[in-house]
Amino acid sequence: MAVDAHGGDHGLSATLPAAFAALREDSGIEIVMVGRREDIEAALADTPDASDKALRERLDFHYVESALPMDVRTVTALRKGEGSSLWEAIRLVADARADGCVSGGNTGAMMALGVRLVGMLPGIERPVLMAYIPHASGFTAALDLGANLSVTERQLVQFAVMGSLTAEKVDGIANPRVGLLNVGHEESKGHMIVQAAHALLKEVPINYIGFVEGNDLYAGTVDVAVCDGFSGNLIIKASEGLARMTMSQLRQAFAGSLRGRLGAWLARPALVRMLAGLDPSAHNGAPLLGLRGVVVKSHGHADDKAYMQAILEAAQAARKELPQRIDSLIQQYHLEA
Amino acid sequence: MAVDAHGGDHGLSATLPAAFAALREDSGIEIVMVGRREDIEAALADTPDASDKALRERLDFHYVESALPMDVRTVTALRKGEGSSLWEAIRLVADARADGCVSGGNTGAMMALGVRLVGMLPGIERPVLMAYIPHASGFTAALDLGANLSVTERQLVQFAVMGSLTAEKVDGIANPRVGLLNVGHEESKGHMIVQAAHALLKEVPINYIGFVEGNDLYAGTVDVAVCDGFSGNLIIKASEGLARMTMSQLRQAFAGSLRGRLGAWLARPALVRMLAGLDPSAHNGAPLLGLRGVVVKSHGHADDKAYMQAILEAAQAARKELPQRIDSLIQQYHLEA
Repeated sequence: MAVDAHGGDHGLSATLPAAFAALREDSGIEIVMVGRREDIEAALADTPDASDKALRERLDFHYVESALPMDVRTVTALRKGEGSSLWEAIRLVADARADGCVSGGNTGAMMALGVRLVGMLPGIERPVLMAYIPHASGFTAALDLGANLSVTERQLVQFAVMGSLTAEKVDGIANPRVGLLNVGHEESKGHMIVQAAHALLKEVPINYIGFVEGNDLYAGTVDVAVCDGFSGNLIIKASEGLARMTMSQLRQAFAGSLRGRLGAWLARPALVRMLAGLDPSAHNGAPLLGLRGVVVKSHGHADDKAYMQAILEAAQAARKELPQRIDSLIQQYHLEA
Repeated sequence: MAVDAHGGDHGLSATLPAAFAALREDSGIEIVMVGRREDIEAALADTPDASDKALRERLDFHYVESALPMDVRTVTALRKGEGSSLWEAIRLVADARADGCVSGGNTGAMMALGVRLVGMLPGIERPVLMAYIPHASGFTAALDLGANLSVTERQLVQFAVMGSLTAEKVDGIANPRVGLLNVGHEESKGHMIVQAAHALLKEVPINYIGFVEGNDLYAGTVDVAVCDGFSGNLIIKASEGLARMTMSQLRQAFAGSLRGRLGAWLARPALVRMLAGLDPSAHNGAPLLGLRGVVVKSHGHADDKAYMQAILEAAQAARKELPQRIDSLIQQYHLEA
């Protein structure tokens, strides 16, 4: 696994401990940290795990000169990003020197460099971003989260197939239930594109259960929810905004009075467990599907534990040969866009 | 105000107390309850306010034979709905026998009957559904919430104008800030339709502040947020699903242990206040904009307090002559779709 040492808000103080934790967690992986030499050496000096020789044997380094800023423009990443940690991490995958890569860097830059360096699977036009939305009893994999603002019915079908395969092969969900997001459950609902995709999806060999609504994302009705990237992006950001507001109001509610503060202190363990379940980084690691290789996006604000999950997710996707399987199913059922 | 006595999950046990409460709250209104005679008479016998003669003088009744079920299909409402409480409440507005109407009934049926009986303002093709999303320091008015699944740039501009006028004239927000929902704040973001609407909106005499993202709905960044009805419907239902899940998990967190239960009991007043703020019915009453008259949708599950707010919202819209003002601004700036 190639790991972008500088991807994400916390840089090496999250990515290096995450790499060691991933090596410990999954004995079948080796990691190449891609980053600036001086930063990596400084971080190693600060990381207790660095003295573990068995782990160090499975950790290699690929030194680069620069790192892209989190707010880099896509066009800048493409034109001037060569030699940066993100570019090099993705290039290691393109050159088959790594089986997959992980970065918490800029999403648009990752997608553009993924397409440019690794390339798309035949018949697939654009990569799709999948994320895991936590609900009371697990996760709903949702895609697209913003890579494709306008979609055709065939693209929606491709998203469904890619999402289903990822849920099954990477996340180990048997026969994942796939739903198409729409304004109602009824057959007659929705605009022409979701109507056409709905008809096509009935013929595809996945466990397609039909239309689902926005609230189904949090009800555990489906394992995979499919929509265009415009709606998907608005939904996920609105949910993040609501979750953030709820947590802040909860804190205020408890802080308001002595009685509230005492109640909060007593209920703290239960509340902490609950809030951890709401935390989007509880399942970190959003694969960019449709590429010829494994490229996984971590939350920018992921801490070491969350970043480790993204590395393990990438390792699992590589081990299950996810891109090859997607390719085979797309070709087999003539699902080219 | 014409009030559909049977609209909503609770029927007259919510709508009749709501009518009395609205009469008490706003001394300038009169109400016509539209419903089945026997049901109204039974409900009056159960309502303490019914003995208040001063209130009764401002309450009239319009008896009908039937009520549409909550899950009525739009086509059924149009073909067979004549004489139902919803049809008659809307017809009173169409015939200028009421200045506005309120129902908690089926949204599709309300829209279809609104268009059929009351009619659209010139140059406006379809009604738009606006709702109020509660956030920490107020409400964001969001539209469209599902009336128009595919939109043109001119329709988005019309939504923005109608939303801005409603926020200003009905809700009393001076110079409301209007944003266009998009996948990013940057000028270059978004598909062709939001790009084109963005360019048009800069020329319209409203306080357009530019693109906003999903999380801005809960951040108080804007007073009015505009999007197509497909995304809007998914966003609002996803938010409702998340809010419901959060409340349920909060209850579970507190119920889990003696310590949690004690904490919950102590923190209860603060929590109840906080949850009330998250409750979507805290601001009930979603106007159907673009019609020639005032038609306001209540949540189906609204209780009497929430239903009263929808009645007051309708009264305020009628008093401020909202449809006429929308008409005038749409014509004045040649914003026909």
